[in-house]
Amino acid sequence: MPKSREIHLTRRPAGMPQESDFTLVERDVADAGDGEVLVQNLYMSVDPAMRPRLTAGQALDEAMMGGALGRVVQSKHEGFAVGDLVTNRLGFREYFTSDGKGLTKLTPDPDLPLTVHMHALGMTGFTAYGGLLHIGALKDGEQVFVSTAGGAVGSVAAQIAKIKDCYVVGSTGSDEKARWLSDEVGLDAVINYKTQPIRGALEAATPKGLDVYFDNVGGDHLEAALRRMNTLGRIPVCGFISGYNSGRSAVSNLSNIIYSRVMLRGFVGTDFMHMYGDFQRDMAGWLKDGRVKYQETIREGISQAPQALIGLMHGDNAGKMLVRVSS
Amino acid sequence: MPKSREIHLTRRPAGMPQESDFTLVERDVADAGDGEVLVQNLYMSVDPAMRPRLTAGQALDEAMMGGALGRVVQSKHEGFAVGDLVTNRLGFREYFTSDGKGLTKLTPDPDLPLTVHMHALGMTGFTAYGGLLHIGALKDGEQVFVSTAGGAVGSVAAQIAKIKDCYVVGSTGSDEKARWLSDEVGLDAVINYKTQPIRGALEAATPKGLDVYFDNVGGDHLEAALRRMNTLGRIPVCGFISGYNSGRSAVSNLSNIIYSRVMLRGFVGTDFMHMYGDFQRDMAGWLKDGRVKYQETIREGISQAPQALIGLMHGDNAGKMLVRVSS
Repeated sequence: MPKSREIHLTRRPAGMPQESDFTLVERDVADAGDGEVLVQNLYMSVDPAMRPRLTAGQALDEAMMGGALGRVVQSKHEGFAVGDLVTNRLGFREYFTSDGKGLTKLTPDPDLPLTVHMHALGMTGFTAYGGLLHIGALKDGEQVFVSTAGGAVGSVAAQIAKIKDCYVVGSTGSDEKARWLSDEVGLDAVINYKTQPIRGALEAATPKGLDVYFDNVGGDHLEAALRRMNTLGRIPVCGFISGYNSGRSAVSNLSNIIYSRVMLRGFVGTDFMHMYGDFQRDMAGWLKDGRVKYQETIREGISQAPQALIGLMHGDNAGKMLVRVSS
Repeated sequence: MPKSREIHLTRRPAGMPQESDFTLVERDVADAGDGEVLVQNLYMSVDPAMRPRLTAGQALDEAMMGGALGRVVQSKHEGFAVGDLVTNRLGFREYFTSDGKGLTKLTPDPDLPLTVHMHALGMTGFTAYGGLLHIGALKDGEQVFVSTAGGAVGSVAAQIAKIKDCYVVGSTGSDEKARWLSDEVGLDAVINYKTQPIRGALEAATPKGLDVYFDNVGGDHLEAALRRMNTLGRIPVCGFISGYNSGRSAVSNLSNIIYSRVMLRGFVGTDFMHMYGDFQRDMAGWLKDGRVKYQETIREGISQAPQALIGLMHGDNAGKMLVRVSS
């Protein structure tokens, strides 16, 4: 019977989450019974979409939900063997027992690091892929803007658009990330929104307007993009991080969508699961060719999970924020 | 050579337009030359979408543009005969000469009043039809909300949704219009947004949420609808009258579209011209069957055009606002 440390949400944050909103709890986890497995989490994913669940959705005084990659360490379930890798939604804990529901076996690509399955080659990358190509109906050579282009989803979206021969502008929150996007990723224009007002900077960077805005931010970024949308433009709305903590996410010029006949559409990755096979084939190839680059920010140990989530909200991450739960 | 009175925009309104923003000008109009027609306008259409053009789009000190129905009174053009009815975009004047470009011959339905071609059976009705069925992808039996349901577009949209066996809620700005929508049109619920806060009233009226919101208003109506949208809901955005005069049209909860995966799409009637034949057949039938009812508010004489437009902004119209230019 292993001891598992897990992170509970013990107070709903008002505005930016604080470490004191969370509590590290140690508890006993039962060994695998008949038809069960015991899973040890290896890595957990830290995502912007976790923030709204802190306000509503995540139960208080329970271990938090969240994407993770674990390894089966005991099995009395005929579908799983010890050593199997499994993705799961029970991220904020070291161990858990399961009847197998909600576990998906992962066969890692032997030519790529394991962690890429947690981002570019996992749901994060798939969100970018389907959001841009399916929801955004991207066509080769279009004019594209991606916000939080230094983040896990944004960086993949921006690079897919480059692969599709688009003109791509990215926004990010630090000069260091901006340099990576310019020098390593090769975006056509990069805006550090903390030093350049987004509205004027985006106008200057988009002489041919915008056909697609991949929105992770909402608020002032969305307002700036709405001023630049070309006729029949598309805005896949993946996140609204501007409003997650501040509540300052009002959009004042939404009426712009009428005359330019612009579409906005909120989505989640499960909206286009029919594309998952294509995605895995394309993305594995792009990663191996070096056409999709990535960054990771890895915090060590489950106790660091709250700080990792808070740091993500402050933009401390370069690329995907992960916590190594065990190794 | 007839004299024509026409309405010029002589000052851009700040906020609600005033009569003093417009000037009635009398001028000589040339007789039809070779390849030309002289058209006398009979009716002009007064539409909410005219308001944003007063701020940008409509030239100052020129006769205003706007939809109209006229009659050819002189013709030296082989495509038109004296007596032909023609729709045109040169509404705010009594007479004009034309080389025929921008004129569309109208063959009126002999079993319907001529003016229905200006609204339910014209572009107004087509905007409702395509906006609901094409952009909104309405399915039979869905949950629907239509704002400005007493207006020319909204009343048709609401009735098409009823014909499609939907549960339909409408909002309007007076008890008289609300009664017409309840008693004559038979909507399932009607909200007078001037006496009932829209957010609470819409929540009470939509126990099964909303699949489609046909938006003519934006602002607080859109915010209220965004709180009620079901998964994969659609919001065809036809107008944003909340912001046309006040500028108070910010939307604070647009992030709701993400988890419910809601689509908003701005549109204009020309986006779905491939449906025009179906529309004319369906709508003529519905009008003759009495399944689509309508109201008209007709002002007399071109000099009343500015007041008609201002009145529209105040909700003085029941149904379609028209000006009878001549008879």
